[in-house]
Amino acid sequence: MPSISDKGNKMPASPIRKLVPFAEEAKRKNRKVFHLNIGQPDIRTPEVALEAIRNYKEKVIEYSHSAGIESYRRKLADYYKKIDIDIDYSEILITTGGSEAIMFALMSTVNPGEEIIIPEPFYANYNGFSTAAGVNVIPVTSSIKENFALPPISEFEKLITDKTRGIVICNPNNPTGYLYSRKEIETLGEIVRKYDLYLYSDEVYREFCYDGKEHYSVMNLKGLEENIIMMDSVSKRYSACGVRIGALISRNKSVINTALKFAQARLSPPSLGQVIGEAALNTPDSYFKEVYEEYIERRNFTVAALNKMEGVICPNPGGAFYTIAQLPVDDADIFCKWILSEFEYKNQTVMMAPASGFYSNPLHGKKQVRIAYVLKIEDLALAMETLEEALKVYPGREI
Amino acid sequence: MPSISDKGNKMPASPIRKLVPFAEEAKRKNRKVFHLNIGQPDIRTPEVALEAIRNYKEKVIEYSHSAGIESYRRKLADYYKKIDIDIDYSEILITTGGSEAIMFALMSTVNPGEEIIIPEPFYANYNGFSTAAGVNVIPVTSSIKENFALPPISEFEKLITDKTRGIVICNPNNPTGYLYSRKEIETLGEIVRKYDLYLYSDEVYREFCYDGKEHYSVMNLKGLEENIIMMDSVSKRYSACGVRIGALISRNKSVINTALKFAQARLSPPSLGQVIGEAALNTPDSYFKEVYEEYIERRNFTVAALNKMEGVICPNPGGAFYTIAQLPVDDADIFCKWILSEFEYKNQTVMMAPASGFYSNPLHGKKQVRIAYVLKIEDLALAMETLEEALKVYPGREI
Repeated sequence: MPSISDKGNKMPASPIRKLVPFAEEAKRKNRKVFHLNIGQPDIRTPEVALEAIRNYKEKVIEYSHSAGIESYRRKLADYYKKIDIDIDYSEILITTGGSEAIMFALMSTVNPGEEIIIPEPFYANYNGFSTAAGVNVIPVTSSIKENFALPPISEFEKLITDKTRGIVICNPNNPTGYLYSRKEIETLGEIVRKYDLYLYSDEVYREFCYDGKEHYSVMNLKGLEENIIMMDSVSKRYSACGVRIGALISRNKSVINTALKFAQARLSPPSLGQVIGEAALNTPDSYFKEVYEEYIERRNFTVAALNKMEGVICPNPGGAFYTIAQLPVDDADIFCKWILSEFEYKNQTVMMAPASGFYSNPLHGKKQVRIAYVLKIEDLALAMETLEEALKVYPGREI
Repeated sequence: MPSISDKGNKMPASPIRKLVPFAEEAKRKNRKVFHLNIGQPDIRTPEVALEAIRNYKEKVIEYSHSAGIESYRRKLADYYKKIDIDIDYSEILITTGGSEAIMFALMSTVNPGEEIIIPEPFYANYNGFSTAAGVNVIPVTSSIKENFALPPISEFEKLITDKTRGIVICNPNNPTGYLYSRKEIETLGEIVRKYDLYLYSDEVYREFCYDGKEHYSVMNLKGLEENIIMMDSVSKRYSACGVRIGALISRNKSVINTALKFAQARLSPPSLGQVIGEAALNTPDSYFKEVYEEYIERRNFTVAALNKMEGVICPNPGGAFYTIAQLPVDDADIFCKWILSEFEYKNQTVMMAPASGFYSNPLHGKKQVRIAYVLKIEDLALAMETLEEALKVYPGREI
């Protein structure tokens, strides 16, 4: 029997995936499971985007250009100009979700065995993409006590070696919801300038910034045109995760030309998804206003509910739709399994993501969970009530 | 300025891509360019598939399961059962096009620096996927004189080393159109059994077999359940290349479980494409009958027209919609550029794929081109007439 590759063996299985059978079992027992474990919002995709697909007139669903449909890339450049990111359409490569943008970025710029530094906790799939590309992730730990702010420069500098190729950030952050300030982005700019590194910035939650705070994109750092790579996606902005359309953006022409070779091998990003993406650019402002108001209400409710529970610590996240909460439990992996399999309150239970999967050293997130506040307030209220009751009776409770 | 990765530098740029500016220039001069260079058929996508998307009722375009929508996987298993391939839906992983199926297969089973053997000429993007996965392609050359039949076992055995992990075939073949016989597939089965290798079979052209010949799938080789990996796609079968939906199929549970980890990292294949793929399974037989009749007419016409041209040799392909022709020219790369940039006949010209890109040693295909007979007969007739006239006056003509 031929064997599996080392890379295949090393690919991380997410801790969330381990919980799936327990969630399915709970559903078989007719329990209501509130899914706070994944960033799949219940917000409607904009009508203008859905209409575009219902009115699809082509007779043959053809490949698009490997870099994406030109009219879409041009309109996307207009979208960026409106938010003060001045790029040409030729600096945009349409990808199959933000996921592919990250893969192309890593494969184009980092050799197997080389390193990227990522503030942790970080989006678990960065581990998967890095393993697939043969790249080593070096974490720099941010702390719940500091609300997950950017660690000081000195912490990055301790980790930079000959093998370091760049720094990856997600802003606003998944899983912490932290919104990096302009000053923090400029600090990162200084580091990559000093050591001639790439700065890879995943900005798929750009539109989700709260409390009057403004998003500051890495694309606005001056004099770092060759160092900056931005990854983007339509998934969250338009609540259209299933279309699998993202973008890789850089003013570094070698990066775009190299990524294009990877893009040509896979022929084209999804054509129907691009139709949706292009139409979604005409989404009225009223949609975003409603969505914003919905999320701010959800965040305020969720964070307040969590902090009211005895022994729970939850920073107030400035963006995205996640928050990391520290729970009064022995081990969040065990607790998340227990709440699904052993607990119910009014025949309900809750699925959360244990934070261990977001740290390279799982012990760092041992008492933490990520909560995606992607459900409507009534459901969030029931979910929080269920969590509070569960914490009261959990055998591994630790205050 | 930070550098590009070695892999990025090594990624092959297709010889077809080099021709694109010349084709664009010809169009700017208002010349009609017949595209025989790419497998983008002009055949209509089945109405039942287009209707499914026009009738799309969901309000949120959500992620699907990472392995694909379960109802789609189950119906796909039924499709395979009907064509005598008996597999369970759990042995099917839905991928983003056949491209991703190949990437997942290689990354799951071959370590960087290890080798796969591929009969050449082969689909040029296998080079790209192999470079991306860090895998070395070892070609075994098939010959136009033998109609591109499978080279003898001894030729494979000469190339098998400790580093060999498997053999990749495409059946029916892109770019040759060759349809492997049952005996040839069984021969490949013997080799992989003897050396405990994987046999990766790209069967995306399964429905395109001519002259009463039947397709024999690797999935029907007995006792090789752990060794066989099939790649499939809806692109060609339903003329829906832009939906980017394929499948990785294996009875080897370790392979499927490993590939699923790569699939989880990228979250989900395109949801709308899966809606199309699932609906397309209800395509009436009459559609395939019409398509078959169209292609057999196109093939017969194209191959006859080519062989009538002085100095041209073209085998009669048993499947797919490609053929490789040997031309009386000094260098097909130069000729293909010349016909686009320097030649016109009745204000028309032709874009073909130089075969050099399908061989690891470009010299092997120096006088060959791949012709995709994906246009309607009237256009093929004009394209062949144009090619014939061009060959008469091409300065580098060699008989």
